[in-house]
Amino acid sequence: MRENRNNDEIRKVIITNDYLMHPDGSVLIEMGNTKVICTAMVENKVPHFLKGSGRGWVTAEYSMLPGSTNSRKIRGVSKGKLDGRSMEIQRLIGRSMRSVVDLEKLGEHTIWIDCDVIQADGGTRTAAITGAYVAMIMAMKVLVEAGQIPEVPVKGYVAAISVGKVGDLILMDLQYSEDSSAIVDMNVIMTDQGQFIEIQGTGEERPFSKKELDEMLTLAEKGIRELIEMQRKIIEG
Amino acid sequence: MRENRNNDEIRKVIITNDYLMHPDGSVLIEMGNTKVICTAMVENKVPHFLKGSGRGWVTAEYSMLPGSTNSRKIRGVSKGKLDGRSMEIQRLIGRSMRSVVDLEKLGEHTIWIDCDVIQADGGTRTAAITGAYVAMIMAMKVLVEAGQIPEVPVKGYVAAISVGKVGDLILMDLQYSEDSSAIVDMNVIMTDQGQFIEIQGTGEERPFSKKELDEMLTLAEKGIRELIEMQRKIIEG
Amino acid sequence: MRENRNNDEIRKVIITNDYLMHPDGSVLIEMGNTKVICTAMVENKVPHFLKGSGRGWVTAEYSMLPGSTNSRKIRGVSKGKLDGRSMEIQRLIGRSMRSVVDLEKLGEHTIWIDCDVIQADGGTRTAAITGAYVAMIMAMKVLVEAGQIPEVPVKGYVAAISVGKVGDLILMDLQYSEDSSAIVDMNVIMTDQGQFIEIQGTGEERPFSKKELDEMLTLAEKGIRELIEMQRKIIEG
Amino acid sequence: MRENRNNDEIRKVIITNDYLMHPDGSVLIEMGNTKVICTAMVENKVPHFLKGSGRGWVTAEYSMLPGSTNSRKIRGVSKGKLDGRSMEIQRLIGRSMRSVVDLEKLGEHTIWIDCDVIQADGGTRTAAITGAYVAMIMAMKVLVEAGQIPEVPVKGYVAAISVGKVGDLILMDLQYSEDSSAIVDMNVIMTDQGQFIEIQGTGEERPFSKKELDEMLTLAEKGIRELIEMQRKIIEG
Amino acid sequence: MRENRNNDEIRKVIITNDYLMHPDGSVLIEMGNTKVICTAMVENKVPHFLKGSGRGWVTAEYSMLPGSTNSRKIRGVSKGKLDGRSMEIQRLIGRSMRSVVDLEKLGEHTIWIDCDVIQADGGTRTAAITGAYVAMIMAMKVLVEAGQIPEVPVKGYVAAISVGKVGDLILMDLQYSEDSSAIVDMNVIMTDQGQFIEIQGTGEERPFSKKELDEMLTLAEKGIRELIEMQRKIIEG
Amino acid sequence: MRENRNNDEIRKVIITNDYLMHPDGSVLIEMGNTKVICTAMVENKVPHFLKGSGRGWVTAEYSMLPGSTNSRKIRGVSKGKLDGRSMEIQRLIGRSMRSVVDLEKLGEHTIWIDCDVIQADGGTRTAAITGAYVAMIMAMKVLVEAGQIPEVPVKGYVAAISVGKVGDLILMDLQYSEDSSAIVDMNVIMTDQGQFIEIQGTGEERPFSKKELDEMLTLAEKGIRELIEMQRKIIEG
Repeated sequence: MRENRNNDEIRKVIITNDYLMHPDGSVLIEMGNTKVICTAMVENKVPHFLKGSGRGWVTAEYSMLPGSTNSRKIRGVSKGKLDGRSMEIQRLIGRSMRSVVDLEKLGEHTIWIDCDVIQADGGTRTAAITGAYVAMIMAMKVLVEAGQIPEVPVKGYVAAISVGKVGDLILMDLQYSEDSSAIVDMNVIMTDQGQFIEIQGTGEERPFSKKELDEMLTLAEKGIRELIEMQRKIIEG
Repeated sequence: MRENRNNDEIRKVIITNDYLMHPDGSVLIEMGNTKVICTAMVENKVPHFLKGSGRGWVTAEYSMLPGSTNSRKIRGVSKGKLDGRSMEIQRLIGRSMRSVVDLEKLGEHTIWIDCDVIQADGGTRTAAITGAYVAMIMAMKVLVEAGQIPEVPVKGYVAAISVGKVGDLILMDLQYSEDSSAIVDMNVIMTDQGQFIEIQGTGEERPFSKKELDEMLTLAEKGIRELIEMQRKIIEG
Repeated sequence: MRENRNNDEIRKVIITNDYLMHPDGSVLIEMGNTKVICTAMVENKVPHFLKGSGRGWVTAEYSMLPGSTNSRKIRGVSKGKLDGRSMEIQRLIGRSMRSVVDLEKLGEHTIWIDCDVIQADGGTRTAAITGAYVAMIMAMKVLVEAGQIPEVPVKGYVAAISVGKVGDLILMDLQYSEDSSAIVDMNVIMTDQGQFIEIQGTGEERPFSKKELDEMLTLAEKGIRELIEMQRKIIEG
Repeated sequence: MRENRNNDEIRKVIITNDYLMHPDGSVLIEMGNTKVICTAMVENKVPHFLKGSGRGWVTAEYSMLPGSTNSRKIRGVSKGKLDGRSMEIQRLIGRSMRSVVDLEKLGEHTIWIDCDVIQADGGTRTAAITGAYVAMIMAMKVLVEAGQIPEVPVKGYVAAISVGKVGDLILMDLQYSEDSSAIVDMNVIMTDQGQFIEIQGTGEERPFSKKELDEMLTLAEKGIRELIEMQRKIIEG
Repeated sequence: MRENRNNDEIRKVIITNDYLMHPDGSVLIEMGNTKVICTAMVENKVPHFLKGSGRGWVTAEYSMLPGSTNSRKIRGVSKGKLDGRSMEIQRLIGRSMRSVVDLEKLGEHTIWIDCDVIQADGGTRTAAITGAYVAMIMAMKVLVEAGQIPEVPVKGYVAAISVGKVGDLILMDLQYSEDSSAIVDMNVIMTDQGQFIEIQGTGEERPFSKKELDEMLTLAEKGIRELIEMQRKIIEG
Repeated sequence: MRENRNNDEIRKVIITNDYLMHPDGSVLIEMGNTKVICTAMVENKVPHFLKGSGRGWVTAEYSMLPGSTNSRKIRGVSKGKLDGRSMEIQRLIGRSMRSVVDLEKLGEHTIWIDCDVIQADGGTRTAAITGAYVAMIMAMKVLVEAGQIPEVPVKGYVAAISVGKVGDLILMDLQYSEDSSAIVDMNVIMTDQGQFIEIQGTGEERPFSKKELDEMLTLAEKGIRELIEMQRKIIEG
């Protein structure tokens, strides 16, 4: 049915660790033609509302390069504001990371996650989450090595995948040509325990049934387990 | 358990139709202490990307009055930009309305939906969707009466409710005191056919299981059926 | 001449006190079809230029809901800035309130006044001032009850009314249909002692004479005395 | 009482016509140490709301140079927005000019008035109005000479002066040291027929009585008559 | 003296052509550790001031990823405006490209050049110019192949290099550690004919003499000839 | 060849010192029809990055009045941002001033330089630099007189001139009619020792040769020596 892969198959994933020289954590994640640079940089202070609390913070920003899409993506700074879609996505990335971080144990540090899409072919937000997790852990390891925190303060792994209904088929990891004709589009973020951190499902062309939802969630779990396996290999070295 | 209502019960709902004199459609929706003014105003032109297409558009804006919350909510115009949460919500309202509108049949009109929260006590986005639907239909009726379109161009009803897990309990229609201590928070938008338009679930305090998801969705359906019944009474008069 | 009222008569005024649950002071003021929500919220700090001075501050913001006017009012945040008219009005409301407040006795508190127009039919700025005064006093009473200040720190009452010349007639409290055809438009803000806090008169269609000015001011005083009587009943309870 | 002048005396006024080489009309107006450059430039189109109406428009902008005041005035562009005071003033200048212009006879031209304060010592807004009138007439004369309009389309002269109450005295044309200690501050804009275009009076320190108002208006008329005499000499050449 | 290279030697340069799938032209240029993605995308319209002129336009934008520098670079959109340095650089890139393009022959197309710094280690603006030239030519070739223009409308090659004085030495192609301690810093942009398109020299620590200027320009010419040779190999490929 | 002056001659220069009453230093510099007000105001604090360093700062802003150019120059505040050209120029002015200031000896003061173009006829940036230097020195003298610093903390004089190639001629101090048809345009900033602080040369119409560069630099030096002589007369009184 699909070009080169089965309906329940994720695209070829390559996670290049230590991609840049300056950030504490940096990866290039490629899922098929989708390519996202994810970096994690530590700042030794926290937002105003956490000062003196002993707790840390993780925040994320997401952006697409102008040349990452087919028709040139106008920069946020040129429009004078972040577009709504990017804001939604960066809030989602931040929540996803924080959901597995023990902010108490992080101490009063802020981890800035930046996800910059170099090339977009569908699934940039889920690729960003999967890559950002690796970059974040690498930055935390630097903090541990520097003796600033005793251990990497996370409760588990987190990865994300998109699934959807295209025509009559439930498809894994939609590329752009599929995503743009999807009837239902769903992003699932999950832990290594198979539990949901966030699910967002939208009936793009028509509403969807409980049965369809269940099928999509089952498929998503399969993909996420595979992604977490890849994360584990890099992180555990 | 809860004050004054059962765990699976929605708060007292009052939808005051024709609330304001100027807009074509306007309602005040009250769900317990949450109060939202929803208006629908028609503009006889469409956004640039639809010009000449013969299709219409529905767009939504959401805002909270400074006095609607416990500590004063700073206006967007004072910060120079819309906050991320409001942007997410207004995009959600817009998508929800468009999902049941036949934009071809609407013709080249734009319906502006405005949801202004007068008083917030949890569930403002779902109240906004439920109220906005009524305001939108009323504005469409004005177009029909004016002979601009032959019939109200919608495929069905849409309403929304929040459900969540607080402690060990699955609760319907969370008020603020419940929402702020929820472990899982879920917003469900559904048609009168019991199908999903959008679901968004977030593990605020911990990830959640498939079983918890299923329980929340079942409860949400019950609430939405009740809300659609109220909408129907007003709309069918 | 006019529909339902004499030339020197104000519209039906309803001031609903304690309109919202969160702010310390909140009223809905209705003058005919003009409806404005006025809230007063106390912040336990003062602007930079007053820090350590022992003096308090009162500041105001004014806005119109998109659905409050006949053609949809675009939000300030969408245009990226406050429009000139709103800025003028909120500066006027702030000055009017401060003119009767003993800022020394208020101590280092800021009272935020918000006037949000729900429905506009002329005279929104004067209605806002009259309503804001009541909300402000209510918020001050909360401070007194909390033992933060010994007494309500005001020197007197303040209310406002618009008067104008329409055709050959001097009219009290112009509604929109009158205001838009007025030759001269005047806003008068006055104390319970019959003294002026601020007067602003503009020859919209032609300049105006000293005689016309005197007639308008006399009429305004009559209206303001009636409004202050209503304020007094609510405040003295 | 005052340094160098009587209480009912205006400061030394110098209006230098044709001050700059590029604008159609340009004057430097000096009232004592207050110095304002006023220019008028014609654009051969009108704002959107007047297109095709055959009517013209006059609009004004007002700004203070950073070095015009004692402590450096931060530029609007650095703050990202026009301050409220400047916005009020430029709206006032625009209204004042339009009040004496026959916009029908102006045809579809826009006259841009710019008032830039080079040095501020009180009364900048009234000086700006008095100077802007001369610049505007000069620009209109250029239009007449170019055969674009048959005659200068104005109904009369307009000038402005500030008056106020300082201590027990009613003073004409307040300089900064007086203005900053004024109890009542009033700006009056008047025609050569002695009629009001706009009056704005504010009780800065205390409310003011009808008697005080009358005294201030009488004094203002005297000053404005003198200013219009100076305008006339320049314009009639 | 320097690590791994002579004073008159440029760093290792790698230009990866056709780096991204969407833009018509795209290269990754690496000069040592400095890495910049340069893309060129064609739009079939021109800025307002060129409409109907038959002439085309080339414009450029420059940005640094947050993770490209040692301490995180805050995004322009977060600060609400482009920083002055980036604006200077993107204007320089645009001028440099336009200087060798025959805008008449380009016809009414706009070429958007985007230079996004992935990793910064000195010389990002000159690397951007050298890379942007290749991307631009590739995009022009696509226009030629599509039959939209008869030939690649350029007059010659353009490349850029930085040179500077560090201590007593004149150095070629400064990396960050050298650039930050430079006494004089100079950016030179040159054609394949050895003529200057733009020179910018700044005495960072002290003014510089004519003799020093001459030495730097001679060195720059050597580096630029080498870079143009590399461009030629790719383009004539 | 040129109207009224030789090719190597600067326009008539008038520097009016002490032009405004409020700033510590203020000059009006006129170079032919180009007129710029330059002011220098001292603030007793420094930017964040210098706090506690014992060092001072000099920063500059540049702007053109709307009426300074032939077609009205739209204000930065109206466009919501500073245009790229103004930003480049004000950064250049700031660097030029700082290059001759001993920031250690200045102590923790910031000198704000403002250059506001009243009338533009070419060479505004170089006139601004030449004028700003005088204003800055005057402000420093006030600091010395007030006993805040022991001596004027500068290392020498700085002035600037534009030179360029128009047709076959190398011209000094281009006025607008020349500048707009220049093939090469160069701004040179120099000390009284004849050394370069900054040079910026741009081939507007075609690249330029080393020989042309040398001729322009020689000419620039002549002009700058004359300007520094004028500065010296004013400063040394």
